[in-house]
Amino acid sequence: MSDLTLAVDIGGTKFAAGLVEPGGRVVAAERVATPQGADAETLWQTLTTLLDRLEVPAALTGVGVGCGGPMTWPEGEVSPLNMGGWRGFPLRARLAARFPAVPVRIHNDAICLAVAEHWRGAGRGSAAMLGMVVSTGVGGGLILGGRLIDGGTGNAGHIGHVVVDPEGPPCGCGGNGCLEAIARGPGLAAWALTQGWTPKAAVSPGALYQEEGTATARRLAADAAAGDPIALAAMARAGRALGIAIASAVNLCDLDLVTIGGGLSQAGDLLFGPLEEALREHTRMGFARRVRVVPAALGQDAGLIGAAALVIAGDRYWSPSL
Amino acid sequence: MSDLTLAVDIGGTKFAAGLVEPGGRVVAAERVATPQGADAETLWQTLTTLLDRLEVPAALTGVGVGCGGPMTWPEGEVSPLNMGGWRGFPLRARLAARFPAVPVRIHNDAICLAVAEHWRGAGRGSAAMLGMVVSTGVGGGLILGGRLIDGGTGNAGHIGHVVVDPEGPPCGCGGNGCLEAIARGPGLAAWALTQGWTPKAAVSPGALYQEEGTATARRLAADAAAGDPIALAAMARAGRALGIAIASAVNLCDLDLVTIGGGLSQAGDLLFGPLEEALREHTRMGFARRVRVVPAALGQDAGLIGAAALVIAGDRYWSPSL
Repeated sequence: MSDLTLAVDIGGTKFAAGLVEPGGRVVAAERVATPQGADAETLWQTLTTLLDRLEVPAALTGVGVGCGGPMTWPEGEVSPLNMGGWRGFPLRARLAARFPAVPVRIHNDAICLAVAEHWRGAGRGSAAMLGMVVSTGVGGGLILGGRLIDGGTGNAGHIGHVVVDPEGPPCGCGGNGCLEAIARGPGLAAWALTQGWTPKAAVSPGALYQEEGTATARRLAADAAAGDPIALAAMARAGRALGIAIASAVNLCDLDLVTIGGGLSQAGDLLFGPLEEALREHTRMGFARRVRVVPAALGQDAGLIGAAALVIAGDRYWSPSL
Repeated sequence: MSDLTLAVDIGGTKFAAGLVEPGGRVVAAERVATPQGADAETLWQTLTTLLDRLEVPAALTGVGVGCGGPMTWPEGEVSPLNMGGWRGFPLRARLAARFPAVPVRIHNDAICLAVAEHWRGAGRGSAAMLGMVVSTGVGGGLILGGRLIDGGTGNAGHIGHVVVDPEGPPCGCGGNGCLEAIARGPGLAAWALTQGWTPKAAVSPGALYQEEGTATARRLAADAAAGDPIALAAMARAGRALGIAIASAVNLCDLDLVTIGGGLSQAGDLLFGPLEEALREHTRMGFARRVRVVPAALGQDAGLIGAAALVIAGDRYWSPSL
């Protein structure tokens, strides 16, 4: 029997699958753009074709899957927000039928990224950590007591819906003033446009699997770096919102560490400066001051590494009996 | 050997000690007012005298202690905010010297109240719960995966310092806009006074161990019940702040249940109405809608019951090796 784990990472812009060694190294990986507007079976075919290309060995330790939410959990009937063809699609059951001899475990993709950072990235050894992604959306996963926290229904970690301004803009969740409404890439760019920003920076043609909707945000970051005052204000506004939400999470969950990945996190000090300032204003209790906020350390394989960890390091990252 | 557990509850207004059966029943309890302005040894003498009155049996299963924070944890060197005589006082070590044969476990008093509600109160059976106290301060404890969450330093559960209004009033923690700054009893009353409120309701003479600083808040609640518009607005303001902070906690931690105890929670619909309204506005994701907010079910023995649970139900409520 092979000691490899199959990892699958399902998102609105790409599908990825890889084979992962017990230590977390990805030894083979395949990717394909998510077919847009595809129906349920076309999406499934896309995934099975990808798995065929990967030449998955007959024997595996298990299958770990990260997928955009929401989903029923741990059953894994998925309804990814930006993949309309799957609504209540039994992704875990389909994969379990294809790999009947081994555990098949699925979790939210943002949670897999947090798990990856804790297992093999910037969060190694942290007892109390929040792993965040700031991109088209703002998501995350909580590790407390050195273990992944699922919450009552597998949805713990939704830092994007911590309220940072009760009078703030409407959010995609139906509420208003959520961190995500302010700090997600497209929201950030939209705010800058209302303030009179006109994109100046040329941005290199998007990578093959560029994150949806973040192109304008990347231009905004580039303009901010070049000193555009509205672009700078937009980055500061997002940074402060992040700092406030993180402070609330630190005070509530007594965190050591916050890792931030995703496209917007690459803006560097333009984002992290205002973030740190707001964070320090709102974490004044002795225990809370120790928290550090650092960039995520893993690159594009993070999703696969975290998905694999659900199987390989299930003692820390997997609680359900399923 | 007796199967009783000694429980101790140390607060700024009273010290309590009790003997607790394995099922959580308090079979004997003694209380004494906290000597105000006392030095460290006078406070310790007050506690030992209380224990002598209780006639603690020679054999015990252990000693559980709830104490106002902050403290080093799990070592239990305590520096309760409103008990200036103890700064870095080795409360756990002193008790361990007195009861050398059994475990002595200490935690924040708000955490003990949350544990009590989960173990024997309104939170029984909840997998993901926040137990809150709204009184002179606003505190709490988190139970996730059916277990007490300590956070990195034993300080998880500080819901009072979730930011509900980044432009909000200064907080005792040194930050601003924290839930506690708005919803703590004295803060609530102070705000009403700035709005022109003049206390009307007569309030019965305080109970022997009346919570410090809440007398005015109780008058405010009574005036609100009688229809005073400023008092009503003050209760609504606190209720909305509670609803917003709870929503952030629900979205982040995927909670089933929130219990609310403490003096202010007795204001009923005047507080819970606006709380529910704000909570529902800010918990729109499918998983978050299920959360219920209920009054705490246990009375004045809650602190003792929770402290005892650190020993009796240590499999769920105690993680350190100490």
